[in-house]
Amino acid sequence: METFFTFLEKRVDDCSSLICIGLDPHIPDLKEPSAASALDFCLNLVKQTAAYAAAFKPNAAFFEVFGAEGWTALKQVIEAINEESDRRGSRIPIILDAKRGDIASTAEAYAKSAFENLGVDCITLNPYLGKDSIEPFLQNSEKGVFLLCKTSNAGSMDLQNLLVMPVGSDSPMPMYNYVAQLAQQWNTKNNVGIVVGATHPQIMSNIRASVPDMWFLSPGIGAQGGELELALKSGLRKDGKGMLINVSRSIARAQKPGLTAAELRDSILEICSSIVGNR
Amino acid sequence: METFFTFLEKRVDDCSSLICIGLDPHIPDLKEPSAASALDFCLNLVKQTAAYAAAFKPNAAFFEVFGAEGWTALKQVIEAINEESDRRGSRIPIILDAKRGDIASTAEAYAKSAFENLGVDCITLNPYLGKDSIEPFLQNSEKGVFLLCKTSNAGSMDLQNLLVMPVGSDSPMPMYNYVAQLAQQWNTKNNVGIVVGATHPQIMSNIRASVPDMWFLSPGIGAQGGELELALKSGLRKDGKGMLINVSRSIARAQKPGLTAAELRDSILEICSSIVGNR
Repeated sequence: METFFTFLEKRVDDCSSLICIGLDPHIPDLKEPSAASALDFCLNLVKQTAAYAAAFKPNAAFFEVFGAEGWTALKQVIEAINEESDRRGSRIPIILDAKRGDIASTAEAYAKSAFENLGVDCITLNPYLGKDSIEPFLQNSEKGVFLLCKTSNAGSMDLQNLLVMPVGSDSPMPMYNYVAQLAQQWNTKNNVGIVVGATHPQIMSNIRASVPDMWFLSPGIGAQGGELELALKSGLRKDGKGMLINVSRSIARAQKPGLTAAELRDSILEICSSIVGNR
Repeated sequence: METFFTFLEKRVDDCSSLICIGLDPHIPDLKEPSAASALDFCLNLVKQTAAYAAAFKPNAAFFEVFGAEGWTALKQVIEAINEESDRRGSRIPIILDAKRGDIASTAEAYAKSAFENLGVDCITLNPYLGKDSIEPFLQNSEKGVFLLCKTSNAGSMDLQNLLVMPVGSDSPMPMYNYVAQLAQQWNTKNNVGIVVGATHPQIMSNIRASVPDMWFLSPGIGAQGGELELALKSGLRKDGKGMLINVSRSIARAQKPGLTAAELRDSILEICSSIVGNR
């Protein structure tokens, strides 16, 4: 039995890529506002980019918005990714971007929904409710979570940048550092990572210094304006891994999503080898 | 056009009740683990308790766990509540307990899902992503939100009790107080309330002192062990309202849920008039 991050690292090696392809069927990007169009949009993206995808990340919101039909489409997208994996002989991890967080008995239902009903490998979670809201997702080490730590949006400064004074600590620290440390403590089975937006490279460096080994899921490159090289310098681990670069709109809206993904994969490879070589 | 909290207060007056009936079809409480059983469970509870319900609160997790069929059941539960409202000539607010929170473009999809696709009146949200993640839900003042502030679970102390030092503030304060103050600032349209668990009455008093007028949604009475009188003393506004007492399992698992709800409604009324009379 392999842990979630062993599985992810194997896939990263297989495809020489750190790209996570976000599957966000925004209504304005669809032919028509329907679950069927959302499905088509995602199936096309999966087919064109699978060779370069270290992971796929469907965002639950863009399926929920179509109700039961959207939920069926989400399940079909997951099945299509798994078929693509079988065809290629290399399983591609699926991260459900759902940002859930609830008390334990409810968290169990959310975990069952994601890992059993939908059958994804990993889910994004919100840490605000604390450890007992996360634990139901960590029981099976083959399944992973990414906890929100420092998100890519402007509003992330409202709470995440607050200086906090943990009990027993001498000096205040930003909330995002505290959450990163909690996530590290909770990562006893190699299945906890954190979300760290690429839009704040200085903060990303700071978090990387405090948790040198954890995996980051990093949105914000492309449509949200984060710069690739700076992000990689700030967030990569010493081994040149440890960071999934999430891209959604910049690939989905490209003329040729497969080509754009291939070019991005190659740019990342080049920057990574130059960074690791210089260390 | 009335705001969400004007609507809620009207219903509170109509039914002389502060009870919010949680619709949480936990699998162990169902005849069999299916969406159909979850639907039956909720329809029965709605029918038996509607007379005493200031609001109904279905929790998304217990429907999502059944995939697309669960989502259909959730929509049917919402329709059944609306039919019950029509029959009684007094509309009962529906709060979707979903604890969502995502960046703005995604938050828009979640808002559309809750308010347009499902057609609920209010949703619970997680504040960790900040103001821009909440705003898409606040545009229409007829629709409301309850922001998680201090939740009822043990793990709530991990982040929510941290002492924080807001910029420009002289002294540290607990995170839950800071979130309550943010919620108050964001409540320019009378459609923002906060979730404050009844399991921490001292903290509830403290929050009430800092935001004297806001509505609280308070879980934790009954199955989670909060004591009713103490909770009401800690959380009621001066006018004897301002607090929805959420009950789920203690009513759902009762021999006669309607009778149990009626008795609870009456106990609350009695305690409220004694508290308000003594002020």
